[in-house]
Formats: sequence, C-alpha cells, structure tokens
Amino acid sequence: MSAEKLEKKKTLDLRKKHIGPSCKIFFSHDPIKIVHAKGQYMYNEKGERYLDCINNVAHVGHCHPDVVKAGAQQMEQLNTNTRFLHDNLVVYAQRLQATLPDKLSVCYFVNSGSEANDLALRLAWQYTGHKDIVTLENAYHGHVSSLIDISPYKFHQLSDYEHNQSVHVAPSPDVYRGKYRADHPDPAAAYAHEVKEIIDRVHGKGGKIAAFIAESLQSCGGQVIPPAGYFQQVAKHVREAGGVVISDEVQVGFGRVGSHFWAFQLQGEDFVPDIVTMGKPIGNGHPMSCVVTTKEVAEAFMLSGMEYFNTFGGNPVSCAIGLAVLDVIVKEDLQGNALRTGQYLTQLLEKQKEKHPLVGDIRGCGLFVGMELVKDRLKLTPATAEAQEVIYKLKEQRILLSADGPHRNVLKFKPPLCFNEEDADLVVEQIDCILTEIEAALGLNAENGSSKRKVPAAKNGHQYHSGSAHNGGRSQGLTEQSKRLKT
Amino acid sequence: MSAEKLEKKKTLDLRKKHIGPSCKIFFSHDPIKIVHAKGQYMYNEKGERYLDCINNVAHVGHCHPDVVKAGAQQMEQLNTNTRFLHDNLVVYAQRLQATLPDKLSVCYFVNSGSEANDLALRLAWQYTGHKDIVTLENAYHGHVSSLIDISPYKFHQLSDYEHNQSVHVAPSPDVYRGKYRADHPDPAAAYAHEVKEIIDRVHGKGGKIAAFIAESLQSCGGQVIPPAGYFQQVAKHVREAGGVVISDEVQVGFGRVGSHFWAFQLQGEDFVPDIVTMGKPIGNGHPMSCVVTTKEVAEAFMLSGMEYFNTFGGNPVSCAIGLAVLDVIVKEDLQGNALRTGQYLTQLLEKQKEKHPLVGDIRGCGLFVGMELVKDRLKLTPATAEAQEVIYKLKEQRILLSADGPHRNVLKFKPPLCFNEEDADLVVEQIDCILTEIEAALGLNAENGSSKRKVPAAKNGHQYHSGSAHNGGRSQGLTEQSKRLKT
Repeated sequence: MSAEKLEKKKTLDLRKKHIGPSCKIFFSHDPIKIVHAKGQYMYNEKGERYLDCINNVAHVGHCHPDVVKAGAQQMEQLNTNTRFLHDNLVVYAQRLQATLPDKLSVCYFVNSGSEANDLALRLAWQYTGHKDIVTLENAYHGHVSSLIDISPYKFHQLSDYEHNQSVHVAPSPDVYRGKYRADHPDPAAAYAHEVKEIIDRVHGKGGKIAAFIAESLQSCGGQVIPPAGYFQQVAKHVREAGGVVISDEVQVGFGRVGSHFWAFQLQGEDFVPDIVTMGKPIGNGHPMSCVVTTKEVAEAFMLSGMEYFNTFGGNPVSCAIGLAVLDVIVKEDLQGNALRTGQYLTQLLEKQKEKHPLVGDIRGCGLFVGMELVKDRLKLTPATAEAQEVIYKLKEQRILLSADGPHRNVLKFKPPLCFNEEDADLVVEQIDCILTEIEAALGLNAENGSSKRKVPAAKNGHQYHSGSAHNGGRSQGLTEQSKRLKT
Repeated sequence: MSAEKLEKKKTLDLRKKHIGPSCKIFFSHDPIKIVHAKGQYMYNEKGERYLDCINNVAHVGHCHPDVVKAGAQQMEQLNTNTRFLHDNLVVYAQRLQATLPDKLSVCYFVNSGSEANDLALRLAWQYTGHKDIVTLENAYHGHVSSLIDISPYKFHQLSDYEHNQSVHVAPSPDVYRGKYRADHPDPAAAYAHEVKEIIDRVHGKGGKIAAFIAESLQSCGGQVIPPAGYFQQVAKHVREAGGVVISDEVQVGFGRVGSHFWAFQLQGEDFVPDIVTMGKPIGNGHPMSCVVTTKEVAEAFMLSGMEYFNTFGGNPVSCAIGLAVLDVIVKEDLQGNALRTGQYLTQLLEKQKEKHPLVGDIRGCGLFVGMELVKDRLKLTPATAEAQEVIYKLKEQRILLSADGPHRNVLKFKPPLCFNEEDADLVVEQIDCILTEIEAALGLNAENGSSKRKVPAAKNGHQYHSGSAHNGGRSQGLTEQSKRLKT
C-alpha cells in the first residue's frame, strides 16, 4: 500500500477501533493524513505540502533515495541475525566508532532508543555492581518500564506512580528557568554539585551509584543546553563514586548540533562518556539503534555469563541503512548545513525575540533550537496556551512544529538536516504574524521592538542571550567552529 | 553493501574489536559467514548452500520477493510515526485482529518481542493495579531488564542475580521431563494447581497477582507443549485473583503450528488470553512487533494519563511489510504447509526414535518440533554433549539446527514455513547417520530398532508419544485438522 486507500474518516474510525487510545495523534481534533514525504516536506492525501520542522528521525530527509536503495538492495540479499558473520555489521561498527573518541569502541546493535537505554542501564549495573541511578528533572529516556522509572517527563504524568527508590532526580541544568541561571557565577559547578549532593545522600543511606544518565541536550525536557563544563564535573563526581556516565544521544546525535557529530562533544574534548546511546536519526526512520561503550564495560558485561542476543539488532539491512545514512551526511555536508542553517534560523528567531515580548528565550545548537514563550520576562510565566496557539496556527499554514518542556511552552525546532534558509524564512515569517496577532489580542505592544515593549526584559534574560554570555561560559573548550555557531 | 567485501578473517577480527563479546556467534570456533539467502536456504561467501532448520524469523522464506517489494515501495513513499494518520497502520491492525478472537481488538505496534512483552507487563500492572507476576520455569521473554526478571532461562545464567521479589516461577508444564508426566492422570490440572498454590502464597504475603505470562509453547525452554486444558485452568485461577493472562506468541505465532494461526488456539476455543504478544516472524526479519489486548485493558492503560509513543512502532514501512507477510502466508498456504510438512517431519523423527536409543522424545505441532536426546530413557539423563555433536556434525553437512532447553539436549526444528518434505528427508537422513555413529561410539545398539535396544523404553515415555495419548488429553477442544496433526 503506497498511497491513500481509505477515506480519511474511515482511517480515523479504524484507528479508534484498533489502535491503543494511549497512542496520541497530532492535532487530534483534525488530524493530518500523510501519504508521502520527500526531504523536509510531507504531503497529505490531497497532495498539499507540509514543511516538517520537527522530525529528527527523518534525519537526512524523508525517503532519501540513497537510504531507500541501500535498504531495498540488502533486503533482497539477506536479512538475518548477528549469530552469523556479516560484513555490514562490522564495517558499520567501525564507521560509527570512527565518529567517537577512541575509548568508545564496542557496539551493541538494538532496535530502538528504548532498547539502547535499557541496555545501557544493564551495562552500568553489571560493570559497577551498583544499583542507584541519577537522572535529570524532566528527562525522557524511553518507554520500557525500566526507563519510565528514570524519566520524570513520563512518570510525572501518572497519578499513582510508585517512585523507584534507586532512582534519584537531579535538577535540570537549565540556565534560563532552572535553579541556577545565567546570572549565577558558575552554573555548571552549581548544577554538578547538586549531583554530588545526591551521591552523598545515596551513600549515607548505604546505596551505591551505578550511573548518571542524561541527554547531551535535553529535548522533551525543553531544548535545554547545559552550561559548558557541567558534564565534566558531573563525571568527576560520578566516577569518584564508582559510577559511569551515560550520554543519551537518541534525539541529538549524528551531526544535528552542527559544530560536532555528537552533542556531548559540545562540552569539549575533556568530556568522554562511558556509554553512548543512539537512536532516532540513526536509520532515517528504520527501526534500529546502538549502544557504544568501552572495552572495560563490555568485558564486565560478558563476565556476567549471560549472552546478549537481540533478534533484529545489527541485521544486514539495518546496517546497510545505517551506513547509507552516514554516507549521505558526509556527501551532502548535512552537519555543515545544520551549522549554517541553524545559525541563520537562530538569528531570525533572535530578531523575533527583539520584536515580541512573548519570546523569552532563544537557545540552540545547529538545527536543535528552542524558542521559549513567556507571559512575563521577569517572572518567566510560561505562555503555554500561546505556544499551543502558535502550533495550531502554523498547522493551518501547513507548517509542522511542536511545543514541549515541562510547561509545554518551548517551541522545538528539530527538522530534517536538509532544512534550508528558505524554510527558515517561511516558518519564522509565519511565527512573526501569529505572535503579532496573539500579542495584539493580549494587549501587548509588539510593534516597536524590544526597547519600547511593555513587558520589561529580565535582568538575566538579555545578558544570557547576547554573544558569548549566551552559553553561560560554555564556549570554554569548544572549537572555533562551534563558537561561531553561538554568536 | 550487498555481498562479501572483506576476507572472512578480517570480518572476524573487526567483530572481535567492535562488537560486544556477549553477542555470541554460532559455531564460534569456525563461524559461518552468510552473504545471501532465499527461501529456506542460506549461502556462504563461497556460494555453498546451507539448509536453514532454525530461523523462525524468516517465516515466509528468506528475502521473500513480495515482502521485499512491499518494504521497498513503502520506503520510497513514506516512513514516519503514528502521530499522523496512515492507512497501512489501520488496515494492518484490522487484518491482524481478524486472525484473533473478537475480544482481542486493540493493537500497540512496537519494534521487538522484548518491547512487546515489556508493554504487556505495563498493561497488566496498570489494568489490575497489582504487581506480582507468575512466569514459568525455563521461560524466556526477552532481553530488556524487566524481562530478564521474568526469564529464568536468562537469570539462571547470572551468578549474582538478585531475584525480583514480585516474580514467581511455576513449574514448566512439560509432560516428558517435568514434575507431572504423561503417566499422571491429569497433568493439566496438576500444573495449573501449582500456579494456584503460588497465587495463594502471594496472597498470604499480602501480594496481588497482576499477570501470568507464558509462551503458548515454550521454545528456548525446550520445545514444550503444555497439556490441553492447562491454560484454561491457569486462566481461571489467575482471573479469580484479579490478574490477566499474557500469551507470548513471539516464537510460535503466525501459522507455525499448522492447525491454527496462533499457538494458544491449540488449547481450544474456550481459552482466550487477555494480552497476546507477537514478534520474530511478524515482519520476516524486519524489526517490528505487536501487542494485542482487549478494549478494557487498553482503556485502563489510557486512564493512567500517560501517553504511549513508540518512535518507530507502526510506521508505514513496518505495516506494509507486515501486511505482505500475512498475504504470503495465505497465498502460499504456508500454514497448510506447516501442518503437512510438520506431520511428515514428525513421522520421520518418530522412526528415528524407534531406531535410536538416544532419542527420548519427539514432540511438536506443525513446524515447531523438538527431538529430545537422552542417555537413558528411564532416568531421562540429558544427552547434552551428544546433542551438541549432532549440531556440529550437521553443520559440516551444511544443515543449520540448534539445541536448547535447560539441558541443551533438545534439537529444535523451527524452519521457515516454506520448508518441504525433501528438506525434512535431508536433515533426518543426516541425523540418522550421526546418531548411528555416536551410538556406535557409545556402545549403544542402534541397529535393531526399539524392540531390541539395550536401553529400555520408559514406561511413560512410549505411551505418551503414541497417537492421541501423545497430547496428554490435549485433543479435547481441538479441530479435526489439528487432531490429524498429532497422529
């Protein structure tokens, strides 16, 4: 079935009947039926084009012909498990390894970010012999039961959730809205110290730390970019306690941040996690993912005596597709495009911030950008309803964007990496119109720019976003290339 | 990459360097490199053909052209998540539902059997509000951490495993080697009563049963076929305690058992599980799987307030592939072939049992067949080393078979469903030769058939396997078609 076979109403009726009602649909009052897609564009059953600003899975562009071809050719040849030798598996592992620091050299191929993060926990438990996990506020690491336990983003949705006593939640290193902000002299050290305090409390109760896990940049948590040096200092505390550091790159890896291939590399070469998990973009939509770790962790896992077998993980088709994705990223310089277009988009959005009092913060790296809407720049009152209105009105203009974060007031940009300046112009122009309308209705003065707006700029807010201060000191240890991205 | 690019030694070296050492390889002293496959045959880098008797994932045959075409065509059109409406998702859900009892009407699409079983536990916990799980001895339900806890097959491999206090292990309903055997007047009731006793003990300690989970036929556990009526009686006990019954069809579903599409249906129409999980064969190797449950369970899960989102699960490519697999099963009458060829294979193996004292038991349904090797038919001493020798010698003849069960002495047949009588002749002929050699070396008399063999037939053994008694009363409630399968 390659295109529409059923009337949209029939599709919807069957969905209500046969698909779990917990599986939500975008714009549930008037959902979108998509029948094909190409690059950064998706098309509904009437052939109408939508600009996709949110799909970080279709990383090299929807239905990229090189990826499709690699998958189709390998499907014709062989698709079996890794108990047989196959070149695709080892060549792909070698290619992935080459993007990482040397010590991250051993791969486990699995089928989803959730499988990857669950395996990362198993590796950490086995290697350390410890049990306790430190995770971040608003974190999301996947949907299997072990990951709900370490995902406040999920378990806070449950009224009757029984908190796992081995899981400890540290403050999100959010220098805009979090506990320590851009006006703090050293937010990285302060946030890392919070982790240290948790470790001390765990030790006080006789527990032992197995791992600290965090997305390199929090995505569902609200496009949060930790201050530079944060992970280095956390790693020091965690390793001193005998634990390991897991960097979750499921949302943000594979060149999205522009200046680097992996988002954890934004922190500088002196930070190397013990375990890295990958997912979403890795196969451009094909169900696959990977955990990479050190030889020491892998050997400890083997010494448990338990085989690790994953039926589909690392099959020749998944590896062929993974290789094609890596090839396209290089061939089309998509990491470079993420850097350039991300910078262009961020500049456009910064201008919106100057113009619209509802815009509280613009933050991002490459094509991972957040625009946080607030009703009051001093109190940071989340403009949740307004963010939803922007999303809905953009949908009417056939632009797909979403809002996330604990208050659902952060507009999230994470488009396919072929997203271009024209696309950026289009979406920002529409956002400008929509914000103008909303602000007019609210009686906010959006006409005369920031200097005359009724709502005052927060003391810390503006400082934080101007030039290098934007990074809360993050520029230390970054390459010149990535510094350029921030300015 | 569609064929061999590297020398075999180079492939092996890279594998050692970059793939987790817990990921085991078949025949590790001399592994097989497979470069392509078709139907029930796999080919190494020299073009030598292997007969595949074990790959229940390549269900409709390796690289089936209809499945490859469906996947390739859909990959060109669209591959995105289920937050958009798509016909493939709902049509596929409807088609799957049509194979199941009416009350199993709501689907959740995920990426692997492990994701499916973990979600099944989450559904059970949420629906019942209870925590305790009853699983079977030797059970294997997947590799994520929640499933290691309910998989004695896995956690028994760990020296330092900390048993989950909410998990309770009931005896495997194995009428050959288990606690109650074919000579027991009512093994189904006796094994079900063991579950009842566990439930009572859990209640005595203040616990409450969320679910009983079992493969419809234990696979890794040793190709175990429970006596008829077992699941009905277990379900009665479990439901009286407020729990649900999860049937794991990951290994055995989709027509493999020949007489029915789902293996739980072997027990009769009066047994309907509350949750069914699917996996391996569902996409002929494509990473996908499914959980199907009742409207009541699905609604309770929704009322928890937590969205269920699975990035890749239910994408249009997976659904197109799943639909193509269902089409091929019908078009090529593969369920019928499983019945006929399974019967033929079982008859050939029964003759081997008459001839070879090492053969303790032949059991199976369709193309899911076990041949248990024992050194002594009375004591049932597992012939573990001999089973390994059979496997290794078959490999030299380019026939792929494996041994499993708690003693690794059960030869497991679970080939692609296009397996034919000629294939059955070939593998059984080779097994005959190998067993003859092994028995000669052991000094067992294999020449004169069962009546004169030195090792006596167990009292229960022979009765159990002749005609309808083979089923331990299982024929009640089965269709005529399935009764024929057993004789």
